Amino acid sequence: MIMSFRWFGQGDPVTLQNIRQIPGVSGIVTALYDVPVGEAWPMESILALKQTVEAAGLQISVIESVPVHEDIKLGRPTRDRYIENYSQTIRRLGEAGIPVICYNFMPVFDWTRSQLACQLPDGSNTLTFEDETISRMDPVNGDLSLPGWDSSYTKEEMGQLIEAYADVTEDKLWSNLAYFLERVIPVAEEAGLVMSIHPDDPPWPIFGLPRIVSNFDQLRRLTEHVDSPANGITFCSGSLGANEDNDLIAIIRHFGSQNKLHFAHTRNILRTGPRSFQESAHLSSTGSIDMVRVLEALYDTGFTGPLRPDHGRMIWGEQGRPGYGLYDRALGATYLNGIWEALSKTKPRS
Amino acid sequence: MIMSFRWFGQGDPVTLQNIRQIPGVSGIVTALYDVPVGEAWPMESILALKQTVEAAGLQISVIESVPVHEDIKLGRPTRDRYIENYSQTIRRLGEAGIPVICYNFMPVFDWTRSQLACQLPDGSNTLTFEDETISRMDPVNGDLSLPGWDSSYTKEEMGQLIEAYADVTEDKLWSNLAYFLERVIPVAEEAGLVMSIHPDDPPWPIFGLPRIVSNFDQLRRLTEHVDSPANGITFCSGSLGANEDNDLIAIIRHFGSQNKLHFAHTRNILRTGPRSFQESAHLSSTGSIDMVRVLEALYDTGFTGPLRPDHGRMIWGEQGRPGYGLYDRALGATYLNGIWEALSKTKPRS
Repeated sequence: MIMSFRWFGQGDPVTLQNIRQIPGVSGIVTALYDVPVGEAWPMESILALKQTVEAAGLQISVIESVPVHEDIKLGRPTRDRYIENYSQTIRRLGEAGIPVICYNFMPVFDWTRSQLACQLPDGSNTLTFEDETISRMDPVNGDLSLPGWDSSYTKEEMGQLIEAYADVTEDKLWSNLAYFLERVIPVAEEAGLVMSIHPDDPPWPIFGLPRIVSNFDQLRRLTEHVDSPANGITFCSGSLGANEDNDLIAIIRHFGSQNKLHFAHTRNILRTGPRSFQESAHLSSTGSIDMVRVLEALYDTGFTGPLRPDHGRMIWGEQGRPGYGLYDRALGATYLNGIWEALSKTKPRS
Repeated sequence: MIMSFRWFGQGDPVTLQNIRQIPGVSGIVTALYDVPVGEAWPMESILALKQTVEAAGLQISVIESVPVHEDIKLGRPTRDRYIENYSQTIRRLGEAGIPVICYNFMPVFDWTRSQLACQLPDGSNTLTFEDETISRMDPVNGDLSLPGWDSSYTKEEMGQLIEAYADVTEDKLWSNLAYFLERVIPVAEEAGLVMSIHPDDPPWPIFGLPRIVSNFDQLRRLTEHVDSPANGITFCSGSLGANEDNDLIAIIRHFGSQNKLHFAHTRNILRTGPRSFQESAHLSSTGSIDMVRVLEALYDTGFTGPLRPDHGRMIWGEQGRPGYGLYDRALGATYLNGIWEALSKTKPRS
């Protein structure tokens, strides 16, 4: 297991030196943030990013994410051009020695929350998702702006985009994902890296838009559709765990034993009601997920890939990117390393 | 196990709210810092301290330390008065519901280091002990001032004090400890709390002064001399572990199985040469001590007491009390909680 940490590039208030001082962290999860979605990533930018990370004594373990253009998800005629650009990026990342690309296939909105800084009794604050609040929101006509909403869209463009999904059923979205996988997985195989799809967050449709990477059956369908080690998944305990019907351990054991689990996000959440949750600290005692059982399943199935703490609370007065402050995520990293080390030393691998 | 954190009172730059936001920490290890050594602690100050901690949503799990007056260690005639004051403090702490008192029996100097901020390759800094440097130091005539040196002494007083130890052999120091234990342990029993002696740090004589709480045999001798559950020890992995001849696991198993292990300091050190070490991060991978084996031994012997991370490096630019910053110690707390949780869930208690 390679303990990794997400870094948002030079503009991130969390520096590479900060990350390097977290004991036991060696991997960086990052991306290029200045390339417009859909364009191929320039080789020189990829190499410069790699050099920056390595100069700080760290390694890039995952590119998260290479975003998938909406035209691919919508199945528009222009998708072939965007898939070709995507393939070009895969080839270049492979050439640069990057082992894993994380991506997702959520229409329009990436991870979504109803509140960015919900005050907790101990004085810290955290992200929450309340179904009732989200249901009342109107992403086109309302005034609210939430994390994961692509601010590069104007309201008008967003309206048109959501409109364009009106006739994209789950089946249609699925066939668009299949079309994408059929084309990029062989490229990844040839480039010597693996694709690792991130499940939907939260794992259910929002704003009437379809979501098809939310549970075991959907993950199995997509990995079996193009049956290749390069067609893998990012296990995300927080995303999948928001739906208590998802059996996290069964998901890990199934895909782990097939060597299709290439990356893990291991954060905790506290389920607060139907389709509602709060992002807790990583410790099992603070949330709804048994983190030891999650790491044990990864360990048992021989997981050797990158794993990272995920969203953290804001503690000790830290100001920063919601979910991505330094402190609580670093506490998560050492906690997860403690669990992993104990498992490694006391439990013979089955 | 009660995960605890040391707090130096209202003057500590690390606040109780900071500590409360560390997930999994519920206990506070603290003391009164304004009572001159040798005087009985006022009941109202004890109760005020307790109230302050509890108002922050935490509990006092240990008083560290109630210092032992030098006259007691020297066996001077005045010791009886100081032992009576000490006993009075024990009674009051018992009345206030404090379960554990940590103390030590090191002549003149508490924990000693040769450097307070040794720069590490990752940009952090830490405490070190280099025997060669310490051997060259003259605590009376030299200019150096090191942590653990009681700044309430003038140079002249310190000289007189060290002089006073000239005829205190190890045997004499031992009989002075025995005299102290014979008198205070019955008081602790009656007060309903336990005394928990901290081993010498480092576990060998410095500046020609004797040290007698440095290894298994010495710990056994003192606990057997007054054989009572109230006469216990603070296991300190960093202090005892600085001497690689100390078998930490054997020490834990012996005293743990006798129910004489009342408190644990679980930090790591990197041994850098004979009688020389660097204080590393808590993770096993960064130091010389296998922290999983240490916690496993505590777990196996049924340890239920307070345990705390100990000295940390200074990371992320933190300025503060050497060894006692917030960040690296908090990373230690979650790491230790991860190990403990994994052991609890995967290993049936033997």
